[in-house]
Amino acid sequence: MVNPTAAMLVIGDEILSGRTRDSNMHFIANALTAQGISLTEVRVVSDNHAAIVAAVRALSRDYDHLFTSGGIGPTHDDITADAVADAFGATISHRSDAMALLAAHYAARGIEFNAARQRMARIPDGAVLIENPVSVAPGFTLGNCHVMAGVPKVFEAMVASVLPQLTGGAPLVTQSLRLMQGEGSIAEGFGALAAEYPELSMGSYPFTQDGVYGTNLVIRGSSSAQVDAAMARLTAMFAP
Amino acid sequence: MVNPTAAMLVIGDEILSGRTRDSNMHFIANALTAQGISLTEVRVVSDNHAAIVAAVRALSRDYDHLFTSGGIGPTHDDITADAVADAFGATISHRSDAMALLAAHYAARGIEFNAARQRMARIPDGAVLIENPVSVAPGFTLGNCHVMAGVPKVFEAMVASVLPQLTGGAPLVTQSLRLMQGEGSIAEGFGALAAEYPELSMGSYPFTQDGVYGTNLVIRGSSSAQVDAAMARLTAMFAP
Repeated sequence: MVNPTAAMLVIGDEILSGRTRDSNMHFIANALTAQGISLTEVRVVSDNHAAIVAAVRALSRDYDHLFTSGGIGPTHDDITADAVADAFGATISHRSDAMALLAAHYAARGIEFNAARQRMARIPDGAVLIENPVSVAPGFTLGNCHVMAGVPKVFEAMVASVLPQLTGGAPLVTQSLRLMQGEGSIAEGFGALAAEYPELSMGSYPFTQDGVYGTNLVIRGSSSAQVDAAMARLTAMFAP
Repeated sequence: MVNPTAAMLVIGDEILSGRTRDSNMHFIANALTAQGISLTEVRVVSDNHAAIVAAVRALSRDYDHLFTSGGIGPTHDDITADAVADAFGATISHRSDAMALLAAHYAARGIEFNAARQRMARIPDGAVLIENPVSVAPGFTLGNCHVMAGVPKVFEAMVASVLPQLTGGAPLVTQSLRLMQGEGSIAEGFGALAAEYPELSMGSYPFTQDGVYGTNLVIRGSSSAQVDAAMARLTAMFAP
């Protein structure tokens, strides 16, 4: 069985300027791997309508799922919802279900539900809301595109709301072998083994420890029997 | 004046699987911002030839500069150089300049310069080598595409080699001093020297060899007389 594929789109000038370090990509990479969904491409674009529309169109066409983060807050530069609607040819408005959620939230806190806050209720028609247990303002799923907040705590909560509803593939099995040898010493044998197991993904990741070069060799696949077999060969080849 | 634009392409299954958290994007975002170059898009793709070729073509066409990280080591999954050559329609071979650098490096250390290590000398014809003061294996610039290593210490050193050339100012002169002393031993004197020469850029890049910490000290500037003078001071200070 082939695992479903996914892409992520990170939206935000602050990531591209270096002001903020993105953490959502790393979080969803691990969450999707655990679910048996292969994260295959990530893009980061600025707060620019045309750039977001183009990326959403390309990534939602090329992959089974698209996850976005950022740009759904109350300020003028939060333009993700409108751009995603455009990308899918959907209309967008202050939707009554989202307005009701937000109105109740602010009323309970004695905070004015002003025009800026109402912006967070702009949701494309036909989209399904994604629950936000942290700060109420919802994300949404339109087609295969899951639109979520950029703030990591909120993003992570939204991922937890969405992921269980998606059909994953067989969870990927990973095994790794840590060797105190440099990559150049193991490359030939490791490459030959990888060629024998085209269904498995094999990668090598160098490190240094106490001044000595080492390599982590990682084997990944959906068949644990195959991963076991390949790892046994690898261990016989290199383990001290 | 409009600022030049740049894109980054991160290459590596280990980022997309969540095994490794990328730090190069955040590093170059800050470096480019400081340089007045606008990082406008980032993509992350897997170790897949077609995916790398497509991304390199799109990003090198749409932006003034493209920086890549990852996939230039000695193992079978290091396919970036060949993919970048394809994207630009360039031929690629074990280039003699890169072979000479690597051969000398391994000969000096009594390490076999085997076929895997020779892979790191595969450089597209017409490309200009990017110096690697950490572990010798060079990156390269082909057209507007700057190809660098994924290991953060090496990536950062290569960015330091490339970025000063993108300002369009006077060509920069670089000299380096290789010391078998850790960074902690030379930091004070090196820092004091750097403070005396504010027009020069001085960087230190740690490495390990046979279990011993060493440091490459690099001095860069537009005046070769100044670089010579500073390097003479540095050599008097630290050379054995």
